[in-house]
Amino acid sequence: MRIGILTGGGDCPGLNGVIRGVVTKGIKEYGYEFVGFRDGWKGPLEALTMPLDLATVKPILAKGGTILGSSRTNPFKMENGVERIKQNLADQGIDVLIAIGGEDTLGVATKLDALGVKVIGVPKTIDNDLNNTDFTFGFDTSVNIAMEAIDRLHTTAESHHRPLIVEVMGRHAGWIALHSGVAGDAACILIPEVKFSVDKVCEYVKSRFATGTAPIIVIAEGAIPQDGDMITKDQPLDAFGHVQLSGIGDWLAAEIETKTGYQTRCTVLGHIQRGGTPSAFDRVLSSRFGLEAITAVHEGDFGKMMALHGTKIARVPLASATDVLKTVPFERYEEITSFFG
Amino acid sequence: MRIGILTGGGDCPGLNGVIRGVVTKGIKEYGYEFVGFRDGWKGPLEALTMPLDLATVKPILAKGGTILGSSRTNPFKMENGVERIKQNLADQGIDVLIAIGGEDTLGVATKLDALGVKVIGVPKTIDNDLNNTDFTFGFDTSVNIAMEAIDRLHTTAESHHRPLIVEVMGRHAGWIALHSGVAGDAACILIPEVKFSVDKVCEYVKSRFATGTAPIIVIAEGAIPQDGDMITKDQPLDAFGHVQLSGIGDWLAAEIETKTGYQTRCTVLGHIQRGGTPSAFDRVLSSRFGLEAITAVHEGDFGKMMALHGTKIARVPLASATDVLKTVPFERYEEITSFFG
Amino acid sequence: MRIGILTGGGDCPGLNGVIRGVVTKGIKEYGYEFVGFRDGWKGPLEALTMPLDLATVKPILAKGGTILGSSRTNPFKMENGVERIKQNLADQGIDVLIAIGGEDTLGVATKLDALGVKVIGVPKTIDNDLNNTDFTFGFDTSVNIAMEAIDRLHTTAESHHRPLIVEVMGRHAGWIALHSGVAGDAACILIPEVKFSVDKVCEYVKSRFATGTAPIIVIAEGAIPQDGDMITKDQPLDAFGHVQLSGIGDWLAAEIETKTGYQTRCTVLGHIQRGGTPSAFDRVLSSRFGLEAITAVHEGDFGKMMALHGTKIARVPLASATDVLKTVPFERYEEITSFFG
Amino acid sequence: MRIGILTGGGDCPGLNGVIRGVVTKGIKEYGYEFVGFRDGWKGPLEALTMPLDLATVKPILAKGGTILGSSRTNPFKMENGVERIKQNLADQGIDVLIAIGGEDTLGVATKLDALGVKVIGVPKTIDNDLNNTDFTFGFDTSVNIAMEAIDRLHTTAESHHRPLIVEVMGRHAGWIALHSGVAGDAACILIPEVKFSVDKVCEYVKSRFATGTAPIIVIAEGAIPQDGDMITKDQPLDAFGHVQLSGIGDWLAAEIETKTGYQTRCTVLGHIQRGGTPSAFDRVLSSRFGLEAITAVHEGDFGKMMALHGTKIARVPLASATDVLKTVPFERYEEITSFFG
Repeated sequence: MRIGILTGGGDCPGLNGVIRGVVTKGIKEYGYEFVGFRDGWKGPLEALTMPLDLATVKPILAKGGTILGSSRTNPFKMENGVERIKQNLADQGIDVLIAIGGEDTLGVATKLDALGVKVIGVPKTIDNDLNNTDFTFGFDTSVNIAMEAIDRLHTTAESHHRPLIVEVMGRHAGWIALHSGVAGDAACILIPEVKFSVDKVCEYVKSRFATGTAPIIVIAEGAIPQDGDMITKDQPLDAFGHVQLSGIGDWLAAEIETKTGYQTRCTVLGHIQRGGTPSAFDRVLSSRFGLEAITAVHEGDFGKMMALHGTKIARVPLASATDVLKTVPFERYEEITSFFG
Repeated sequence: MRIGILTGGGDCPGLNGVIRGVVTKGIKEYGYEFVGFRDGWKGPLEALTMPLDLATVKPILAKGGTILGSSRTNPFKMENGVERIKQNLADQGIDVLIAIGGEDTLGVATKLDALGVKVIGVPKTIDNDLNNTDFTFGFDTSVNIAMEAIDRLHTTAESHHRPLIVEVMGRHAGWIALHSGVAGDAACILIPEVKFSVDKVCEYVKSRFATGTAPIIVIAEGAIPQDGDMITKDQPLDAFGHVQLSGIGDWLAAEIETKTGYQTRCTVLGHIQRGGTPSAFDRVLSSRFGLEAITAVHEGDFGKMMALHGTKIARVPLASATDVLKTVPFERYEEITSFFG
Repeated sequence: MRIGILTGGGDCPGLNGVIRGVVTKGIKEYGYEFVGFRDGWKGPLEALTMPLDLATVKPILAKGGTILGSSRTNPFKMENGVERIKQNLADQGIDVLIAIGGEDTLGVATKLDALGVKVIGVPKTIDNDLNNTDFTFGFDTSVNIAMEAIDRLHTTAESHHRPLIVEVMGRHAGWIALHSGVAGDAACILIPEVKFSVDKVCEYVKSRFATGTAPIIVIAEGAIPQDGDMITKDQPLDAFGHVQLSGIGDWLAAEIETKTGYQTRCTVLGHIQRGGTPSAFDRVLSSRFGLEAITAVHEGDFGKMMALHGTKIARVPLASATDVLKTVPFERYEEITSFFG
Repeated sequence: MRIGILTGGGDCPGLNGVIRGVVTKGIKEYGYEFVGFRDGWKGPLEALTMPLDLATVKPILAKGGTILGSSRTNPFKMENGVERIKQNLADQGIDVLIAIGGEDTLGVATKLDALGVKVIGVPKTIDNDLNNTDFTFGFDTSVNIAMEAIDRLHTTAESHHRPLIVEVMGRHAGWIALHSGVAGDAACILIPEVKFSVDKVCEYVKSRFATGTAPIIVIAEGAIPQDGDMITKDQPLDAFGHVQLSGIGDWLAAEIETKTGYQTRCTVLGHIQRGGTPSAFDRVLSSRFGLEAITAVHEGDFGKMMALHGTKIARVPLASATDVLKTVPFERYEEITSFFG
């Protein structure tokens, strides 16, 4: 048996752990051969491959990113994309393809499965918004990085009596904001699932200072102000001829500063949330996903995605991961922010 | 309503998170009063108390240990222990007691519940061996600390072509060894649940060197050699008149050195595994346990322990936590060590 | 003897270490009394004080920021500023003032010294640009934080074959960029002292990809492009009606993307570089500065600033710290970037 | 020109940084060829080599340990050791040897230099006890690791009202104990340079508890009790037939427990102090040492060792590094421990 592996979408700590798990058990237990496809779906589309053996995967568990490279290429948006993939898989003698990725990558995998390609999926998302699995690897690492940043910001906020805003990842789901905000003891957590009121945030800021502490606000990049809160004011230009704002965090900082008079700064964590060595949780989870994925291959259980249910690794239908976005339930947001805000 | 809180047994990152969760929601939502009992069951036994209000619990989430102090005092082993506790609770006007602790602490809580004291339990164990909850807080922090230590030891092992042993916590259950060993890419993981053969470990060491890498062995403090492996050899005395060995890790190091000729060293992680600031996972879990515990109090749902089931916080009968030790299932040990060892 | 202490300017890991050193030795060895002035020069201007005793300073070494608060208030820019300070010091019975701060704070201290106020200075700057001291505390912590961020970004850059830019602090001096860039193995380091050519950066990016690795560019916030490199192109507006660029790092990212076609992203580390617990180097240095500052007070050696010369703590004239900015010498920049770039 | 490199003695974070600095500038600037000798002096003794080119050294800066391997082999203790080295250097066409190591390695280098071998030395020691350089790489990393461990132990000590002992490296010099003890806010620091009194340590422990805090004691592995303090008491045997004590830290724990009644535990940090990724300070220092070493080769300035003097890299006679051990001056120990103890 000859098996192809690819990693698609944004990079994520733990991708290498899955690759290592798949290849190690696949070779030691089943004697399979492996082909690494480079750069997501671009790999099978353009027949970009790299060899994958025990020596290659031995030292990669602690490494962030993916040794296979990644891309956001979607074969269903390319001319003859599916045909080219089928042809290349046939040319390479690939029996099964293991696709590690998020919504887009697994969406492609689901469609290919329907078209007769033998596919196994492994869920990957920093944002933790894939359905039908308790967690995905990368999320825990990301939350810890954001928490450490918030821990650091507390001392600056308090020394300068300033509100500080941290903008974290999460375009459609607020999991990183919620968990890092709770863990980092943030005063106020703003997520895409619940529109926020700038006035309430400002009241909040003032009440915090009234109690002698300085507020930290965690905002997901996809958080949305209530209708009517959006303003298009003239912003001063800097030396490079452009305004000083970029995303929602900077926008909110400017609003708070205008409305409360407190000098407010925003830190956008950006890519440092998704890079670097994985946490223990993510190393263990990705290793277990990898072992189960190759077992599924061996058992011919195709069209499935690996999932974490409690402490067990389960297999669920590929389609079930992407049919709905797993967002933060209102009760969880409400409970945790009501008391710790 | 007036509520007492205590923390018992070994300290654990996250204890303060539970206290903060309980007190914050208890005051803000229900208007309860709180009394902190100091040093585990010694507190209610000897009426050692401290005040607990919002200001006290506000800044403690990121702090390891417990602001209440802890001890291993067991009132059922003291003369009139139970009577003294009942009297002191009555004197302090305590309606409900929230006990945060492990096997021993919750065992006492279970018995007091049977004797009519209104008790709610919150599970705490570094070792992750309490039953009926997927995880307890403290475990994730501990595994990350051990993993980071193992990451560091790899470079030394490889630079010096030496086996290195890391002894981690786990008297009866090998969860820390298993997870940190997998996360740290240890060659060999030895846990209390599965007796180990020194000869096999030595074979392992030799095979590792044969492939050009240096072995890291993770051993739980409670790991046990096979019958016949125990030797009582004369050990050389050091300058202080005692032998250089202490626990099972040192013992194994001496055995490997004797049997393979490779100079072998053991690092005992000890208390650094249980101290310091909690990981994000443990800060979130302990906060959620705290919120749910006080909700259970409000709903009069006594005799229960908080538990993590998947991503939900559940309430289970207090007795169910301690009736059986949650050890590492053989399949999980076998699978993970077969391939990555 | 009654001594006042204040901390001015941006917060910096190690400020609390100095306060602790001063107060601990001052009380234990000399029996002095201490008054903390709040929020930089605002404290003596407006008689904002807090008590400072052994219990207050005992637990603060590991805490970032400053328990005294800080501000950028300059009494020489306030009406009757100096008179008010002199009056308040007299009212509080202050014999000597210890000012911990950077260029601005020590500049004020220097002038007050000339006006007859007994002052001792302790240098503080994240940026390491104060003259006549090898290092200031805060710098080492900051460089380590930036290095860890760069370590994380490498895996993302390589997984996605993208240039990544990290913008670090340093308006006038490139020390943080130089040290974190070298430590983080950055391809290219851009500092305020040496104007950069966008075209050369782009050549660099392309040459990196040609060798199969992905470039990380570290840029100080004060780095300046060569004349002619500045462009004012029309930038697309985002959903909030403003362009997506903020500082020099974002500007450079847009330029590289335009000129090379590689999608390029910038992470601005911002305040996380100056917050949180200090590194060991900064805890030791700040403690030693504190001990020496109070010894200088005891010896009546006023008008001096503490300095690190090699491994020794020296005292230098206050004025010498701020008469010239300590920038990165061209040779150091040239040597290190020539080979590791 | 063909240049050999070797690393000797215990491994140390930063060794790879030196190798990378030497090779990178040597090839890019001077067009030299390099040969890596494996495992310290064993390499040139037994002609064990590995190739060293730009691709090999490119990714190693952040890696702990040494890619060349190390050993404690001393050619002056081997039959014909020096002759064999000279012959092998001649056979390999080696013009100059760069030896990176501590007292032993540089001692050998000094003797070889006297015998006409062209040698350049780079100082390496975790312990910071080499003379004529302000610091050596590895020390800063080690101190940070120990400090983080001490930070963690504080919460356990305080939760359990127990003295905790941390045994750190330092056989002959107490630098790691002093710096990590100060940085970690240890109550009591015991170093080889100053014999300690168990009774005074016990008084100390009791006084700490009297003020409501729990003592952390940092002890260097080479610390020595005063005459008369050594006892040979009968120790209880454990399940493996040996006593529970190993080094000086465990011994002191038993003494404190006996004399004060407080249950006392010792954590021996061991090898985790010398492994893993280097701190920023050590990455920069090792890189600069490497660049300067190859410049010295180019200038024919043999028989020299690289050294840090203030912020400059200097070259000092090889012999000056090892002629005297750089121990902690009594004043520095006294000052810092008097106030913060």
